Order: sequence, then structure tokens, then C-alpha cells
Amino acid sequence: MSEPFRPAAEGVRTRLFQIIFESDTPLGKGFDIALIVMILASVLVVMLDSVERFGAVYGGLFYWLEWGFTLIFTIELLVRIYILDKPLRYLRSFYGIIDVVAILPTWLMLLIPGTQTLVIVRLLRVLRIFRVLRLMQFVGEGRLLVEALKNSVHQIFLFLFTVFLLVTLFAALVYMIEPDEAGFTSIPMSIYWAIVTLTTVGYGDIVPVTPLGQAISTLVMLIGYSIIAVPTGVFSAEVIRSIRADRYSDQACPGCGHDRHEKRARYCLKCGTWLDEETADPNRASEK
Amino acid sequence: MSEPFRPAAEGVRTRLFQIIFESDTPLGKGFDIALIVMILASVLVVMLDSVERFGAVYGGLFYWLEWGFTLIFTIELLVRIYILDKPLRYLRSFYGIIDVVAILPTWLMLLIPGTQTLVIVRLLRVLRIFRVLRLMQFVGEGRLLVEALKNSVHQIFLFLFTVFLLVTLFAALVYMIEPDEAGFTSIPMSIYWAIVTLTTVGYGDIVPVTPLGQAISTLVMLIGYSIIAVPTGVFSAEVIRSIRADRYSDQACPGCGHDRHEKRARYCLKCGTWLDEETADPNRASEK
Amino acid sequence: MSEPFRPAAEGVRTRLFQIIFESDTPLGKGFDIALIVMILASVLVVMLDSVERFGAVYGGLFYWLEWGFTLIFTIELLVRIYILDKPLRYLRSFYGIIDVVAILPTWLMLLIPGTQTLVIVRLLRVLRIFRVLRLMQFVGEGRLLVEALKNSVHQIFLFLFTVFLLVTLFAALVYMIEPDEAGFTSIPMSIYWAIVTLTTVGYGDIVPVTPLGQAISTLVMLIGYSIIAVPTGVFSAEVIRSIRADRYSDQACPGCGHDRHEKRARYCLKCGTWLDEETADPNRASEK
Amino acid sequence: MSEPFRPAAEGVRTRLFQIIFESDTPLGKGFDIALIVMILASVLVVMLDSVERFGAVYGGLFYWLEWGFTLIFTIELLVRIYILDKPLRYLRSFYGIIDVVAILPTWLMLLIPGTQTLVIVRLLRVLRIFRVLRLMQFVGEGRLLVEALKNSVHQIFLFLFTVFLLVTLFAALVYMIEPDEAGFTSIPMSIYWAIVTLTTVGYGDIVPVTPLGQAISTLVMLIGYSIIAVPTGVFSAEVIRSIRADRYSDQACPGCGHDRHEKRARYCLKCGTWLDEETADPNRASEK
Repeated sequence: MSEPFRPAAEGVRTRLFQIIFESDTPLGKGFDIALIVMILASVLVVMLDSVERFGAVYGGLFYWLEWGFTLIFTIELLVRIYILDKPLRYLRSFYGIIDVVAILPTWLMLLIPGTQTLVIVRLLRVLRIFRVLRLMQFVGEGRLLVEALKNSVHQIFLFLFTVFLLVTLFAALVYMIEPDEAGFTSIPMSIYWAIVTLTTVGYGDIVPVTPLGQAISTLVMLIGYSIIAVPTGVFSAEVIRSIRADRYSDQACPGCGHDRHEKRARYCLKCGTWLDEETADPNRASEK
Repeated sequence: MSEPFRPAAEGVRTRLFQIIFESDTPLGKGFDIALIVMILASVLVVMLDSVERFGAVYGGLFYWLEWGFTLIFTIELLVRIYILDKPLRYLRSFYGIIDVVAILPTWLMLLIPGTQTLVIVRLLRVLRIFRVLRLMQFVGEGRLLVEALKNSVHQIFLFLFTVFLLVTLFAALVYMIEPDEAGFTSIPMSIYWAIVTLTTVGYGDIVPVTPLGQAISTLVMLIGYSIIAVPTGVFSAEVIRSIRADRYSDQACPGCGHDRHEKRARYCLKCGTWLDEETADPNRASEK
Repeated sequence: MSEPFRPAAEGVRTRLFQIIFESDTPLGKGFDIALIVMILASVLVVMLDSVERFGAVYGGLFYWLEWGFTLIFTIELLVRIYILDKPLRYLRSFYGIIDVVAILPTWLMLLIPGTQTLVIVRLLRVLRIFRVLRLMQFVGEGRLLVEALKNSVHQIFLFLFTVFLLVTLFAALVYMIEPDEAGFTSIPMSIYWAIVTLTTVGYGDIVPVTPLGQAISTLVMLIGYSIIAVPTGVFSAEVIRSIRADRYSDQACPGCGHDRHEKRARYCLKCGTWLDEETADPNRASEK
Repeated sequence: MSEPFRPAAEGVRTRLFQIIFESDTPLGKGFDIALIVMILASVLVVMLDSVERFGAVYGGLFYWLEWGFTLIFTIELLVRIYILDKPLRYLRSFYGIIDVVAILPTWLMLLIPGTQTLVIVRLLRVLRIFRVLRLMQFVGEGRLLVEALKNSVHQIFLFLFTVFLLVTLFAALVYMIEPDEAGFTSIPMSIYWAIVTLTTVGYGDIVPVTPLGQAISTLVMLIGYSIIAVPTGVFSAEVIRSIRADRYSDQACPGCGHDRHEKRARYCLKCGTWLDEETADPNRASEK
């Protein structure tokens, strides 16, 4: 998320860099907020355009608004490329790819009609909001969350893998039992039904009609209802672990080098050395 | 929730203040309970009135009951204003606003017919129940809960923000794939479907009918099923943290002023001073 | 669950008491298991009788089986009353009430036809299974669970109270917005819809059809999806607290009386006294 | 999961054993991956064959592919049996049974037509993936998960038992209230409805239509919504306990044999002996 693309040390480019890429000046922050507002407005236009009632009446307006936003975002991207010394590295970065993808659908519309709805990916640009939030010291707490997610991703993957295995076996079983008329026309369709059931969504578009099929369905439901405990348990444990780990400072003891002290500790728990090197040890002082 | 609106030191007003604003006298508690019963009765009348079977028969009775409750609540509000020295501050407080809002719909009915159902906001007045519960030492445990909620609100906001981003992107994708006949008539409609699916509600009023749409739907379901772990994990961790924090007394060390000791601690963990000032330090005593 | 109803010290009654009320003899355990099997069989008969396909064919058989079970259970109850010194206290106890209620519907059937289905309450008698399980040291772990449930019941009650408040307010709001044709015919009906939605059940029998109603619905869904974290968090924290509390023995220090030591502790953490009074302190021994 | 079936010490069999049963050589790992790919391909064929669109066109191809996979898996099984000294023990092991079951349906098809779909159980063979994952040090974290599951299985069984009791009682109650036309045609059908409701799946195929039935339904929903907290809480607590237990080393104290020290501990917490036998005790050293 950090953007280490230093501009050449010229006046205008440096100034633009501060405004566009940084958020710690009033102008930079203002630019970020204006950008986010414009992204949201642009997404709103696409959404309203899709509603027939609005699309029929304001279709023309939406069309020109859409082009207006696209032009502004295109100019913005060109300025970003201009002020960077290594523009290609930016274009291959996370935010760079999103910037390109966000304007592509409208330009493509000139060649291939109907790609307009893809403009919605522009929404991903809203992720820039995290930069503004970071300055507002809002995201700080989110760090623990992301760390906990990273630590539990392997286990949750294993969990989903097991879920998928179960789902497929049950789906095949119910496919054999239930008649086609109930909607179980193929195994993939039956898997769709099994996921709808196991995740407790329960649309009701495909529903078992035979007593045996219904009995197996209740089994799938009870499994789905119970095993939600697994990702929740794993993630809860990870958040708690993260919070606890956060209680420890990363300061090493100047005496023995031990580096896992609670942030509130003043003496090393291994060798008793005074930890706060900047002030004198009160115990030592009083010993004199 | 505290109400620091001191009445003038006159007999009647002081007495009324104790009854209406305080709950620690038998009369005050009785007043609160009578009030809650009346609020619930008034809400019940609105509810029953909306049921055609009852509304058709007892419509007239309900009408006069409604006016009766409104008059009582209006008089109560006037008394509250009368006995307070700074009534305007009360009217701008949380409970004051609710008190006004609770009687407004009936009075407005005289001007604009059909606003009667709004009377249901009167239900918010039931929140006064917390005052009675507090006296019954019922809410004490709720304090930890509220604290945990406050601590996790930022993270849960970030979570919902991410959920909404995901939902919009998936909604736009499925909107492009699914035909209008399946109910995906616009992007906002598709967002409605995506939230119904992700939260595992699954009405089944709008349902994907194409294989690709169904495949993407199962993805939305699995995401919804898994990420419920996030708010649950965060909140669990916060409750555990609150409980643990509760283990510490708020007693400061008389020696060094350190104020985070376990309730069971007898010596300061920072400077070793005896914490319980009311009794002698057994170690010191034995040293003599 | 303990049954302190001592029988008179006569041979037959004492023997019957051991068989019927206790489970630690082979015969007593056998009686309990036979009883549970019979209860389940009796419940199964009621269930199958309700299925038209079976009821039409085996209706007569089921009728006599039903009377057979009822006679056996009635005799069992009479024996229980006979062998107890204070039968009335048993009849007012939890299991006593269930025993009476379990045979009542069949006898009532003689007077009032159609009460037969109530026989299903007989299922509550299966709770006796806990006595057998206890002997198999199966329930031991359940104790922590029950304790955690008891500790969190107040908070979960407050939670459900808040949920119900929210549900009613949203229900009234959507009732005003949605037309009757969509199923929102009264406020109670709307409350039914709001609970179906908030608990993420989502039958789809009543569904919002106006854009505004759908927007508010998504709010209800997101609230329902998020606040499930509250009871889960509270209960998780309580289970963890119970497990942790279980780590401590209830043994008090013979030196200073401090009574919160880990089960693995051998010396008092407050005054250093040797905790295991039955054996000698190895440190003291070696000091000699 | 370990397979202690030593082959006779002949060249070819030893070599085949390393390839087929072990995964720590490049060839062995390659064999496992090829096997998993083939299993997945074989399952995919069964799935696609069930889709009418594909089955009608490629039915013949799928038929021969199916037989191809079955022949390969049969040969593989025969080789496994050949290279093991105690093939019967393998055939009775978990993986052995799955291997037989995976090829049986196709061979049975020669005798009984229509058993083909059972081939899907072949999916269970994918469980072999855990062996490859183990080598990639992927499953290590899963160990904690499995341990936590084992510890909570008793409590979750008790929970499901209680749930089933509740479900049956509510089902019988609603069966008596609701008319047959609403779908509540028998108690088992009503139990199906109650599980659909309690697990918050909510298909909507059977739905209460009377006010009383709807009121009881909301109770079932609120119970289902709240008690999900129980398995989640239990499992969360177990995961946390597992993680914490993992913090302790299995190193025993050389002095007193105590074997539950934190991995970071350097001195025995029971007798104060220096734990790290490979280096000298710094305290002892400085005592000289």
C-alpha cells in the first residue's frame, strides 16, 4: 500500500506528487476526499442507469456524466504517470491496475457495446479510502484483524475444503434419491442445492420432496448449523492471540536481550535489569 | 442516562422530582413501573388496531384509548417540564426527545390523517426500563457488554464496509449474467439479492437461474457463511478482554501510584508496597 | 435432579427403590435403559400414527400399542408412588410432573377426543437419559456448559429484549411502507416478517416489494447478521471463564487461608506454605 | 493415517512401496499428485455425465472414460495389495476401504444398472491430499483444530441431543395447530419444518399460516438464532485452550521431572532447576 515512487525533484511534479500520492497535507487530503466522492458518484450513476425508471428518463444525462467521470479519471491517471519516475512500476502495482481497469470499460464501449456495466469495478478505487482512514487513526485496530485473518486463512481453507467434500457427497446422494421434477436435475445442480442448504441460505427454489431426501436434508442443515462454529472458533482464537501478542513490546532487555516483555513491564522478567534506558532505575538510585 | 436537572427546592416540585425522575423510593419505582405498563399497553393498542379483525370491531375503543394514553403522556411531559429548572436541556436530552416524539404522532393526526402508526416510536420510551433494571442490579453485567461493543464498533464498521464493497461487485457481476426475468432487473435490485444471499437470509424471491449465476451465488453464500466469523471473533475477543480488565481493581498503589493491580494482589507489582492500607503489612510486622 | 425420597426400610420397597430410582446397580441401569427404549418406542408410535400412509394401515395396532405404553407407564408411576415415603413431594418435583403429564393425554382421550398428539410431551421423559449418561461420565463436561449458560442468561435476555425492540420498530416502519398485498397486513404480521428476516431464516412467504421496503429490509438483515456476534461472544467468554475457573482448586492454604490456587500448585502463592497437607514438604525436609 | 505395512525386502516391491505409499521422494509425491488429479477428473466425468446437456452429447465418451479410470484404479489397488506383506490389514484400514468402495460401483454396474452415480464416493479418495499437504507443512495447524474438535465433540453431541428434543416438541405443537394444507401433514413432516426453521435455513416450502403457529415459529427462530452460540462458544474455547496448551514445551525438568513448562521458561517452576541442559546456568556461574 506504500507508494515509493519518488518523483524527479522538480517544483511542479513534487507539488503534484504531494497532492495526488500523499494525504498528510490539507490539499492532499482534500484531493483524496474529492476523488472518493467522484468515484462514488460515478458508481451511483451506473447503478441508477440500470434502473429502468431512471435509465429511460435520464439515460442521456447518465451517458455524458459517465464520459465526464471517465475523462477526469483518465486525466488523473495520465498525471500520475507523468509525475512518477517509474510509471510502469506503478501501473503494475495494486492501485495502478485498479486505476486502469476503472476507466477501461467506458473506452472499450466505443469498440464493444454493452461493456458499460463493468464500470462498476471502479468501486474498487474506493479502497483508497483506507489511506484517508489511516490518517484518521481509524484503521490501526484493523491491523490486528488482518493479522488474525492471515493466521487463520490456512485453517479456514482446510475447513472450506472439507465442507466442499461433504457437500459433494451429500449432493450426489440426494441426486440419486430425489426426482428430477423437484429440481435435482444434475449433480452440479444438486451441489448448488447442497451449498444453499449447508450455508443456511435456503432459497427454497430447489427443495427435497421425498421423505428420505428430506431426512438427509435435515442432516445437511444440522451439519451446516454446527460447523459454522469452526471458522468462528478459529478466528476468535486468532483475534484473542493477536490482542494478547499486542500486549508485549518488541523492546529487548539491555541486560540479557530477552525480548518478550509486557508493555507495562519496567524490569526484565528474566534478569531483573531496568528496561527504560532513558531514565534512571529508581531502585538503584535509592540504593545509594 | 443520569439526569442532572435539579428542581427548585420547593416542597411539591422536589417531591414530584423524586417520584418522576428518581427510582430509588418505593413511589418512584412504582411510577416507573406504571409508566412502562402504560407504554406497553399503548403500543399494544396500536398493534391490535392494525389487525383488521380487531380494528374493524374495536376501532372506536382503540381510538379513545389512544387519545387517553396520549393525554396522560402529554400531562406527564408537562409535569416533567414544570418541575425542572432547565426544562429545555431536558427536552434536548435523549429521553426528552423520545418523550416528545412519543406523543407527536397522535397530535399530528389532527392535522395530517394517517400518521397514527408512527405512534409505535412510543416503544422507545420502554428504554426507561433500564432504570428500573439498574436498581435491580440486573444491568451491571450489561456494562461489560456495552464496553465490548464500543471497543469493537470501529472494527465491525470496517467489516461492514468491506462486506458492502464485496456485495456491490458481486451484484453487478450477477446482474450482467442473469436475465431480467429472474428478478435481476437493475443493479440496486441485484444488491438487494446479494445482501439477502450473503447474510444467509435467502428469501428466494429473486434466485439465479443460469448455471454461471448459480456458481457465483454459491461463492457469495460461502463468503457470507465464512465471514460471519469476523464480527463474532472480534466481539468475543472484546468481551473476554473486558472480563479480564474487570479482574483488575481501580485501587492505586499508595507508594508509586500504579493503578492496574489484580483485585487479588496484596503488594504493588511495580514497587512492592503493601496495598491494603487498612491492615498492617505482615512482612513488615515479622521483620521487627 | 437428585431424588432424596427415602423409602421405608422394608425389603421389597428398598429393592424396588434401588431398581427404579437408582442407576448404580446392574438392574437399576437396565431398568433405566428399558424405560428410555420404551419412551422412544411410544413417541415413535405417535409419530408414525400421524403419517397418513402408516396411520391408515396400522391405525388399530398403533391404538393398542399406545394404550399398552400408557398402562405400563401408569403402573410404573403407581409403583414409584408406592415405594416413596413422601410421594407428594415426588409428584411436585420436575421428573414427577413429567411422569404425570406423560400419561395424562391418553387417559384424557377417553373424555375429550383429539388430545392424543399431546402424548408427544412423553418425550420429556427421555431427559432421564441424563442419569444414565452421568454414570457413564459423559455429562461431566456438560457441567461447565450449564454453568456458562447460567452466567450468560442475564446478558442474553438483555440482548433478546433489545432485539425485540428493534424488530418492532422496523416492523412498524415497513408496515407503513409496504402494501397489504405483499403480506404486511398488520403490525403483528410485520413483526413475524421482521423476526423471520432478522434471524436470517428467510422463508420468503412475506417479502418486501417496494424499493424503500427492500432497502430497510437489507438493514434488518445486516443487523441480524452482525448482532449474532453478541450472544456468541458472551457465551464464548463465559465458557472460557468456566474452563479457566476449573483450573483452580477450591483448596484453601493451611497457612494464610488464600483459596484460589491452580490445581497444579504445590506452594501457596501468597505466603509460600506447602499446600499438600498429607505429605511432607520436600524443601523443609531437605533443610534438616 | 500412518501406514505400517512393510513390504518384503525385494527390489521392485520396495521401490513401488516408496512410490505408492510414501510421499517424501519426488516420484512418490508425483504419484500422489497424479492420483489426485485422476480422482478429480473421474469425479468431474460423473458430474458432467449427470448434466443432460453434456450427457446426451458426450455420453459415450464419458462411459469409456469412466471405465478407463476404474481400470486404472483397479490396477493401482492390485499393485498396492501385491507389494504389501499384510494386504488384508490394508483392505480393512480407512484408506483401504475407500479404495475398494471407489471402484466397486462401476464393476457393480455390470450386474445392476444405475449404480453408476455411486462412483461419486470416489471423491473420498481425495482425502489422500492430506498426505501431500502434510509434507508441505500445511496441515500442521490443522492438528490443533482436530484436537479442539475431539475435545468438544461430547458437548456438541449433548447440544444436538437437546436441540432434537426441542425440535420434536415444537414440531408436535405446531402440527396440532397448523392445518394440513399448510404442509404440516404429519409429525415427521413437522419435524422437518422445525429443523429447517431452527437451523435458520428457511426454505419456505412449509410455512405456518395461523397467527398462533406463526407466534410459535418466531420462538423456534429466536431459539435457533440464539443457541448457535453454544457450539460456537464451546469450540472457540477449545481452540483457545489448544493454542494455549501449545505454548507449553513437552520438556521435563531434569531436577523434579515436572513436565508442563512454558516454552520460554528457563527455570523449573516447581523446584527452580535450570532447564536448558546444554548450556550452563548463568546464576550458578555467577555464584562462583
